[in-house]
Amino acid sequence: MPYNELRKDYLLDRWVIIATERARRPTDFAKQKTEQAKTANCPLCVGNEHVTPPAVLVYLPSNGGIRKDHEQGDFRFHNWIIRNIPNLYPAFAPPKNPEDPPQILESANFGYAVGHHEVLIESPNHTDHPANAPLPQLVHVINAYKDRLDTLSQKPYVTYVQIFRNHGLDAGASLSHAHSQIITTPFIPTTVKAEREAAKTYHNQHGTCIFCDLIQQESQTQRLILDSKHFTVFAPYASVHPMEFWIIPKRHAPNFLSLTQEETEAFAWTLKTTMKALKDLLNDPPYNYGIHLAVNQDAHDYYHWHLEVYPKLTAWAGFEKSTGMYINTVTPETAAAELKKALNP
Amino acid sequence: MPYNELRKDYLLDRWVIIATERARRPTDFAKQKTEQAKTANCPLCVGNEHVTPPAVLVYLPSNGGIRKDHEQGDFRFHNWIIRNIPNLYPAFAPPKNPEDPPQILESANFGYAVGHHEVLIESPNHTDHPANAPLPQLVHVINAYKDRLDTLSQKPYVTYVQIFRNHGLDAGASLSHAHSQIITTPFIPTTVKAEREAAKTYHNQHGTCIFCDLIQQESQTQRLILDSKHFTVFAPYASVHPMEFWIIPKRHAPNFLSLTQEETEAFAWTLKTTMKALKDLLNDPPYNYGIHLAVNQDAHDYYHWHLEVYPKLTAWAGFEKSTGMYINTVTPETAAAELKKALNP
Repeated sequence: MPYNELRKDYLLDRWVIIATERARRPTDFAKQKTEQAKTANCPLCVGNEHVTPPAVLVYLPSNGGIRKDHEQGDFRFHNWIIRNIPNLYPAFAPPKNPEDPPQILESANFGYAVGHHEVLIESPNHTDHPANAPLPQLVHVINAYKDRLDTLSQKPYVTYVQIFRNHGLDAGASLSHAHSQIITTPFIPTTVKAEREAAKTYHNQHGTCIFCDLIQQESQTQRLILDSKHFTVFAPYASVHPMEFWIIPKRHAPNFLSLTQEETEAFAWTLKTTMKALKDLLNDPPYNYGIHLAVNQDAHDYYHWHLEVYPKLTAWAGFEKSTGMYINTVTPETAAAELKKALNP
Repeated sequence: MPYNELRKDYLLDRWVIIATERARRPTDFAKQKTEQAKTANCPLCVGNEHVTPPAVLVYLPSNGGIRKDHEQGDFRFHNWIIRNIPNLYPAFAPPKNPEDPPQILESANFGYAVGHHEVLIESPNHTDHPANAPLPQLVHVINAYKDRLDTLSQKPYVTYVQIFRNHGLDAGASLSHAHSQIITTPFIPTTVKAEREAAKTYHNQHGTCIFCDLIQQESQTQRLILDSKHFTVFAPYASVHPMEFWIIPKRHAPNFLSLTQEETEAFAWTLKTTMKALKDLLNDPPYNYGIHLAVNQDAHDYYHWHLEVYPKLTAWAGFEKSTGMYINTVTPETAAAELKKALNP
């Protein structure tokens, strides 16, 4: 092959140069040790509940199960297993009067960041990241994602709910305690909107969901990482991040509110298994993940929720930031082969 | 103000949350020392010409001026003042037969990365970065940008020429010797295309160039940093990077091939003055800059070249990467005030 490949994303007008000429082995990216934020005096650890805003949701151990409690502003629970709190420095803030939210957009290029910005503390155990948390704890995390998605998406000023996770200082995690974040936006964000529109066009043309078709298509390629009863994991054709992978549910649904108990457990297992492979392969690298979904039901036919994992192994530089094109020095096929091997060491 | 502001870019469908609630002083970003790549055995320093590919252009001192030389593949010049070489690990590679370039796009989502990827060594002096290079040296750099833009844009397989600069390891500069990079692409890249289309729409609606109008408009705001005879510098209304600023020429032109000698010197002075202010203010922070331009003349009426500087002070994390929305913790107005102050310490 005399040239590097140019590949376009399945949906977005986003091109990546798969730079095999400057190819690197995935393990070249393994760092001595991922730089973590400070762990001393962790504000998210048990016993420090008073230094954070009051929780809006906690899970508590209960006889033979868990109990949900929507805290009333005090800090009486120290025995929580999940704790969801407003971000102390929120990007988006809820309206003072939720029944009468303000007008958000004042003009075509100006508005107010009305919404929610929350921190979901995934475990009382500081280091219970998805790669190493016990499975039942990850099931709690997913159930908490569902609870917050359900609650937040019903608010009149919420149009989208972005659930995401930053791991490691290089990936923007300023706290090292296992946590996710949830931000609601008053309109559908740029990238999600572009994805939705392209998925809708595809549905109009083919009569099928592009993600359902991708599950079939990518299962036949070397980009497949894991195929199980309920979830498929693959490295996307035009990955913009080295070692990027997506976890897609086999059952078509616009979001994960309809997950059954069995599917929830399968999602937890798939997340843990793949994140552990990434951790083992690259010595606990920094990463971001985000869940892509559709809140409203009108996208039901054509949008299909999934989770995208972006290992943070390189820096986007002047070329990427100026052009919106990306250079990836690990082919998705190599990424998939290495991750697959790391699944069963 | 009870809420953070939501601001949209002048041209792109790109929103930023100006997060004054989590506001930081610009100087909070000043690092002890920006991490640089290794400087020992620098392959770009004088005397090491043999470890890089042969230059495609060198500037040599000459009686009362400079002399350009297109090297023929040997390494006979050690007295260069500018040296432009192919990247040893190119993202894009030229066709084996330039007269008969290959078909680039094989399908709607697959093609070959045909083009050029060059490294422009800005000075024989390792540390002659724009903030501290002598002005005449920066004039050479800009003239070399012009030479390469002129040469590369005439090739039949080149549709866009991206000139950019990475400074500091955190901003993706793997070599610390003062250098820029040039990449040509076989089609107009995503972000540039979106900018062009929006600028064209604006021109159709208003009969004017949006950048010409922005120079007028932003000069009246607190976002103005520097206003001189030939260039205006301001922090854009919807900056996605803390301390971002743009350098825009007052004379409308789609690219900088038509710069006069006086304008070239003014550009060098403006670049040096503002980059020195950034360096002094934040202790030599990592950054990227990129020149936005139009190669083809059909965009002459509506596209207006400029240089965008992106200090690399924070990391884009799960929210930004999932949504295409950005959180900026320094208001552009604060950025402009601080940079303006630093211009005249």
